[in-house]
Amino acid sequence: MANSKFEYVRAFEQPDNLLANTWIVVRVDGRGFSKLTTKYHFTKPNDKRALDLMNAAARRVMSELPDLVIAFVFHKDCTLFERRASKLTTTIVSTFTAAYMHYWPEYLPDEKLSSPLPTFDGRAVCYPGDENLRHYMSWRQVDCHINNLYNTTFWALVQQGGMEPRAAEQALAGTVSSDKNEILFSRFGINYNNEPEIFKKGSVLYRDYAPSSIQSSPTPELAHPKPRQI
Amino acid sequence: MANSKFEYVRAFEQPDNLLANTWIVVRVDGRGFSKLTTKYHFTKPNDKRALDLMNAAARRVMSELPDLVIAFVFHKDCTLFERRASKLTTTIVSTFTAAYMHYWPEYLPDEKLSSPLPTFDGRAVCYPGDENLRHYMSWRQVDCHINNLYNTTFWALVQQGGMEPRAAEQALAGTVSSDKNEILFSRFGINYNNEPEIFKKGSVLYRDYAPSSIQSSPTPELAHPKPRQI
Amino acid sequence: MANSKFEYVRAFEQPDNLLANTWIVVRVDGRGFSKLTTKYHFTKPNDKRALDLMNAAARRVMSELPDLVIAFVFHKDCTLFERRASKLTTTIVSTFTAAYMHYWPEYLPDEKLSSPLPTFDGRAVCYPGDENLRHYMSWRQVDCHINNLYNTTFWALVQQGGMEPRAAEQALAGTVSSDKNEILFSRFGINYNNEPEIFKKGSVLYRDYAPSSIQSSPTPELAHPKPRQI
Amino acid sequence: MANSKFEYVRAFEQPDNLLANTWIVVRVDGRGFSKLTTKYHFTKPNDKRALDLMNAAARRVMSELPDLVIAFVFHKDCTLFERRASKLTTTIVSTFTAAYMHYWPEYLPDEKLSSPLPTFDGRAVCYPGDENLRHYMSWRQVDCHINNLYNTTFWALVQQGGMEPRAAEQALAGTVSSDKNEILFSRFGINYNNEPEIFKKGSVLYRDYAPSSIQSSPTPELAHPKPRQI
Repeated sequence: MANSKFEYVRAFEQPDNLLANTWIVVRVDGRGFSKLTTKYHFTKPNDKRALDLMNAAARRVMSELPDLVIAFVFHKDCTLFERRASKLTTTIVSTFTAAYMHYWPEYLPDEKLSSPLPTFDGRAVCYPGDENLRHYMSWRQVDCHINNLYNTTFWALVQQGGMEPRAAEQALAGTVSSDKNEILFSRFGINYNNEPEIFKKGSVLYRDYAPSSIQSSPTPELAHPKPRQI
Repeated sequence: MANSKFEYVRAFEQPDNLLANTWIVVRVDGRGFSKLTTKYHFTKPNDKRALDLMNAAARRVMSELPDLVIAFVFHKDCTLFERRASKLTTTIVSTFTAAYMHYWPEYLPDEKLSSPLPTFDGRAVCYPGDENLRHYMSWRQVDCHINNLYNTTFWALVQQGGMEPRAAEQALAGTVSSDKNEILFSRFGINYNNEPEIFKKGSVLYRDYAPSSIQSSPTPELAHPKPRQI
Repeated sequence: MANSKFEYVRAFEQPDNLLANTWIVVRVDGRGFSKLTTKYHFTKPNDKRALDLMNAAARRVMSELPDLVIAFVFHKDCTLFERRASKLTTTIVSTFTAAYMHYWPEYLPDEKLSSPLPTFDGRAVCYPGDENLRHYMSWRQVDCHINNLYNTTFWALVQQGGMEPRAAEQALAGTVSSDKNEILFSRFGINYNNEPEIFKKGSVLYRDYAPSSIQSSPTPELAHPKPRQI
Repeated sequence: MANSKFEYVRAFEQPDNLLANTWIVVRVDGRGFSKLTTKYHFTKPNDKRALDLMNAAARRVMSELPDLVIAFVFHKDCTLFERRASKLTTTIVSTFTAAYMHYWPEYLPDEKLSSPLPTFDGRAVCYPGDENLRHYMSWRQVDCHINNLYNTTFWALVQQGGMEPRAAEQALAGTVSSDKNEILFSRFGINYNNEPEIFKKGSVLYRDYAPSSIQSSPTPELAHPKPRQI
């Protein structure tokens, strides 16, 4: 509309359309969450309320953006926003942030929000092959498992073993998975395999495409969030 | 950390570092705000509370990201996040969204938030020359002026003139600025020049670098938001 | 080596690595060839010597760059030059140009080269799916067919029909394939289907991976260039 | 023209337009030139004929591409090929290669070309500031100086000192500039400062914009190639 001599500056915007026929994964990360989880008294190593809040926010994003087939994966055929990376990532990150803020009082009613507020960043990655996408999901799941095993052991040492955080850290330095399993079992009677699946594997939201004859609502409903092994 | 056979998928992340020695402008836009402003009963054509909320959110972003010299411009020398476009844009958009949600009850106490929540998108643009940056600011200001003149006239016709929105739209089709000024003055006694500066020109937040001998706080304080002609 | 204060300028080089797991097609185009073919008296509409020269140059490029599986397609797994677009395209274009210059006297012994010399440009395109690559090849082949049918008819009108080029151009404006076939047959007794395959479909060079028990040379030999329908 | 169902594959071509208002430097490098210079018996450390051939080829590129202000720098205002990186680099590299091949017999009449032919690669880099461009030129000049001092000393040790290449290499390992100057002077009576400027600093071609009243030819003539200190 502003048809002025200054409008030439629009030409500096460089296209960032993502390659067609590839899966677009938008990965969202919490910013400074180790500090934030301490400030708001999250239960360690896992706070079920906070995980549920995350899933609620992710579910909201999937409701708002029907092009998402998994949280947060756009189909190879998706043409939303002409596949512009900045539009796709900022829209997801903003919608996620707004939902996370909105649902916070519902999931964490005793924690009043103040600065610093919970914020997130994001990036888009293209995966050409279906196998690449599966491996991406596996990578995230393995990452979740490794972090959770570490955190579970660390907090057992601190909370039940009475160790200082630094001492617990040193005790775990150089240990492999079987070492941590052994510490958990022999010292704290915890069988890691019996930990909740959602802690060990994370959760995946995906859109459930029901056969159209059964599907009554025009918009496909989202499946309930649940841990899913890939 | 997850040193698994799946980790190769990281290699699909493509670098998006923005060219060095250029001003990085991150433009943030509201998503679906014409619908949203109706839903939450914003005063038309301008809602001072909503403008103040925007500025409060922008001020918060500048507090959190000291690399910003203007809302939202990173200095040519800035190396934050290695100048990665996705990190810079999503961090700004997420911080802005969180702040906007957080301050909402303070600025719009009577409007309870529900779906759809206010969300934003963003993009990064590089400007090599200082003049390019000035022209960018001018472009946004001209854009603000043109939109505001249109909106002021449109809502005068509707609110004071009793026209239907569609009729007002048709009445304004093809008019130039002087026509709208004339309509405002002759029919509604409004001298557009006397409208508040913040309505006509928008507002700009910038970081005020006071001389270090005067500056007492370690972090430079933000100037109060105020309309500034460029 | 030049470890000086100026070396920071290297940081301005932006990465252009092409997405992994995609077919990389480098398309090479002659620059100003309609002028060039006139200057060097190429037979119209097709000069077999010039086509053979093109194929000889392409064969040379494939010999020099064993990563090429088709002229000029790099395999999805190819990691040559870290898949940097500029290295891949300029290397192919330079090698092609050098070979074209080198073989010229062999294929066009009567045409002494002078300015302007034959030059080429190129670009790299990524195709994620095998089908995308097949369709790319089909696209080029259809393009070749459409151009060749037009050129064959145009030059029949000019060379055998005695028309001025401009008149021939006007005679063909708005015609479809069947019209051109009809003109060729009824006016010049040419059955387009009997034209040489290499004129109608172009040629494709591909690397023939013979079974290793038969293959004696360490480097796989190139198949002879031949038209191939896809 | 090929209006077929396959034409969708064009959409996979991703834009690579370089940022406006920046100097575009296209750097061209010889591929495998240490091998090539040996094969074609280039005089070491510098072969004046080969340098002149390089300059002749560069001069030809500048004649063909009037947008070039320096070999090979496009002006900040240049809009050639819409500033597409692949078009700009491949056109320069191809034109340079063709000219290098074409002038070869003139400058190196005794060296008959055969495989491997001389080929080049190239890349485009954007420099936003004039100072960045000057520093780029300085960087290349410093690089030339350092390499030439090394090569001059190395070949003095080999050619005049009778050392094996490997021994000469070891003799120079860890030496700084002053050491090499000293070796040249004390052992071979060579005062490095008296070496030809073109060896020590390389050469720069630039377009000489004469006042239009003096300039008779429509196309501005190129300045003669000459070493120029920056």
